[in-house]
Amino acid sequence: MLMIPGPTSVPEEALLTSAKHPIGHRSSEFSEIMMEVTQNLKWLHQTENDVLMVTGSGTAAMEAAMINFLSSGDRILVGCNGKFGNRWAEVGKIFGLNVETITAPWGKPLDTEIFSQKLQADIDRQIQAVIITHNETSTGVINDLGSINYSVKAHGKALIIVDAVTSLGVVNIPVDAWGLDVVVSASQKGYMVPPGLGFVSVSSKAWKAYEIANLPKYYLDLNKYRQFANQNTTPFTPPINLIMALQASLRMMRKEGLSSIFARHQRLMGAIRAGLKALNLTLFAEDKWASPSVTAFAPSAPSKLSVEEIRTLMSGHFNIILAGGQDHLKSQILRIGHLGFICDRDIITCIAALEVVLSELGWDKFSPGDAISNVSTKLKEKDY
Amino acid sequence: MLMIPGPTSVPEEALLTSAKHPIGHRSSEFSEIMMEVTQNLKWLHQTENDVLMVTGSGTAAMEAAMINFLSSGDRILVGCNGKFGNRWAEVGKIFGLNVETITAPWGKPLDTEIFSQKLQADIDRQIQAVIITHNETSTGVINDLGSINYSVKAHGKALIIVDAVTSLGVVNIPVDAWGLDVVVSASQKGYMVPPGLGFVSVSSKAWKAYEIANLPKYYLDLNKYRQFANQNTTPFTPPINLIMALQASLRMMRKEGLSSIFARHQRLMGAIRAGLKALNLTLFAEDKWASPSVTAFAPSAPSKLSVEEIRTLMSGHFNIILAGGQDHLKSQILRIGHLGFICDRDIITCIAALEVVLSELGWDKFSPGDAISNVSTKLKEKDY
Repeated sequence: MLMIPGPTSVPEEALLTSAKHPIGHRSSEFSEIMMEVTQNLKWLHQTENDVLMVTGSGTAAMEAAMINFLSSGDRILVGCNGKFGNRWAEVGKIFGLNVETITAPWGKPLDTEIFSQKLQADIDRQIQAVIITHNETSTGVINDLGSINYSVKAHGKALIIVDAVTSLGVVNIPVDAWGLDVVVSASQKGYMVPPGLGFVSVSSKAWKAYEIANLPKYYLDLNKYRQFANQNTTPFTPPINLIMALQASLRMMRKEGLSSIFARHQRLMGAIRAGLKALNLTLFAEDKWASPSVTAFAPSAPSKLSVEEIRTLMSGHFNIILAGGQDHLKSQILRIGHLGFICDRDIITCIAALEVVLSELGWDKFSPGDAISNVSTKLKEKDY
Repeated sequence: MLMIPGPTSVPEEALLTSAKHPIGHRSSEFSEIMMEVTQNLKWLHQTENDVLMVTGSGTAAMEAAMINFLSSGDRILVGCNGKFGNRWAEVGKIFGLNVETITAPWGKPLDTEIFSQKLQADIDRQIQAVIITHNETSTGVINDLGSINYSVKAHGKALIIVDAVTSLGVVNIPVDAWGLDVVVSASQKGYMVPPGLGFVSVSSKAWKAYEIANLPKYYLDLNKYRQFANQNTTPFTPPINLIMALQASLRMMRKEGLSSIFARHQRLMGAIRAGLKALNLTLFAEDKWASPSVTAFAPSAPSKLSVEEIRTLMSGHFNIILAGGQDHLKSQILRIGHLGFICDRDIITCIAALEVVLSELGWDKFSPGDAISNVSTKLKEKDY
């Protein structure tokens, strides 16, 4: 049982579809799949923009989102409050961009005011792009994309590039209504599909930037993907079986409906946080910027409980896989993924198992039964 | 029934394995798979070099093979006698390399003598790499890699970069014995795995070139893959389900044995060519440079038989999918893929169906039964 922030659980329907024999990617049968999948991707992104599929991990889609629309020396602002924000900054520097990072401590959200000030101060309109990791998977913090985007729109020139890898299909991201230029995501998260596919949505403003962008690109040249997508195919051999799985999972998502999907993630986030609090564990992110896809926590001080011991017992006794911390948070926090194919039973299971494991480790700073009771109460709340 | 040169047929064992639930890629369970797969990839490549897996199509692996070991302005020789040779030249130009193409007409092999002359004439050792598409999938021609490599070794400085996308796991490519520096391949060919994974083997000489190569790279930076592979994991989320399928298919390949795999492909190539000849079809490539993975053919002149009609009937009546020609050969030739998970029954099926389809189209320039009889004779030949 995977409770990590990706790869996430895959519904049987998608898994079995992915086990079908590959079909040729230059066939009409594949074109029909591409047509449906592309339409449903646009639905999921709430956009009329192109939504392109790239064979690769989410990082391939990140790199594509950057190198297609920017030129060496371009000034960009990158929000950094976790591992993935840092990765964006690193990629930008490698490609010779003039990267200015706006940082916040891990576990805190980006300060929207700083973005507003930087953008307002840019009278010459030199800032070409603002890059935001919407949901920081490494810390369980969701950044205030709406507010930052508001400042970007006021600036007028800069593109807004959004890493929505663990927020798309989890929270509302109305690409057209907000005018989000480039939005990046990956199959093994909210999509409920095994890893291997990245997605990039591209606005007409971003395509204009493409025309003058001078970084060399071939495999990740999104214009090729656009041209072939217009003919319902791909420039290079696509991961056909993953796309068949995606077809199945997008159908499931359409059936559930966007607002229901978002409400379910909110409700389950509330339940898991209530459970963890009742176990007297410290939540790494405050409620007001808590991520609806991943929750990080640690035993409350002065406990000397080892997070690795908790993780090992959760896996050993219950075969429930939690994620550890990344980089300097390794062995400091645990992370529970609760995005994609996830339901009430998963949450109650996870919290119940955690209660048993904590008891076994001698952690007695909670009232037995409270956690389950609190989770249960939260689960009963109507989706909002 | 797929008889195209990729994606190729996938054995049930690999398909069902790929439908297992994803596991975390930072788990010991995944590390064990990585360890086994990496060992078996080295076995398949007959090498002690690193063999790295990249999430992407074969083109991603091609780009990686180029941008990791070369710098802008570097002089390279690229053999071009088909679509994929041309792609290498195009990628090189986009990344600012000084690309010199050595061309041959589509359907003919590269002239090894020209490579020898160019390399001998390069007294200053300015040529940094020679890139050869071993098997031209677009035409069904196999190039004489051994001879060209001999000239490269005599040069001493240049790297030999080999596109083995449709030759690895098909013909003998002894990476260490021949000193092949960089060898590129992809999952949906000889590997018998669905598309989505590329492979690059890298020699110590190529790693030395990596140290001074100055092209910007992040997602396709092979040093990252090497560092993580040394810890039995990957720098970015890998296509876990495809790697599980690969584990199954590599086990099958080891069981069959390299020499048996190569002999089977040679024997089946002989059989299919005998059958096509008996049907009085014109083979696009001559026997002496015929590809053991794909055979291109066309109705003999002065026939006005349409290759598209043949393809449509093969698909409509028998659900056998053949490939058409690419680029200027579109509607000029048909291509039969016979690599990977392919056996005697596939060949006899394909030729028998083709005989029926040709008869239906009014093609009477062959003696009924001859094709099957000739195929049968060839199939009985001992593997050599």
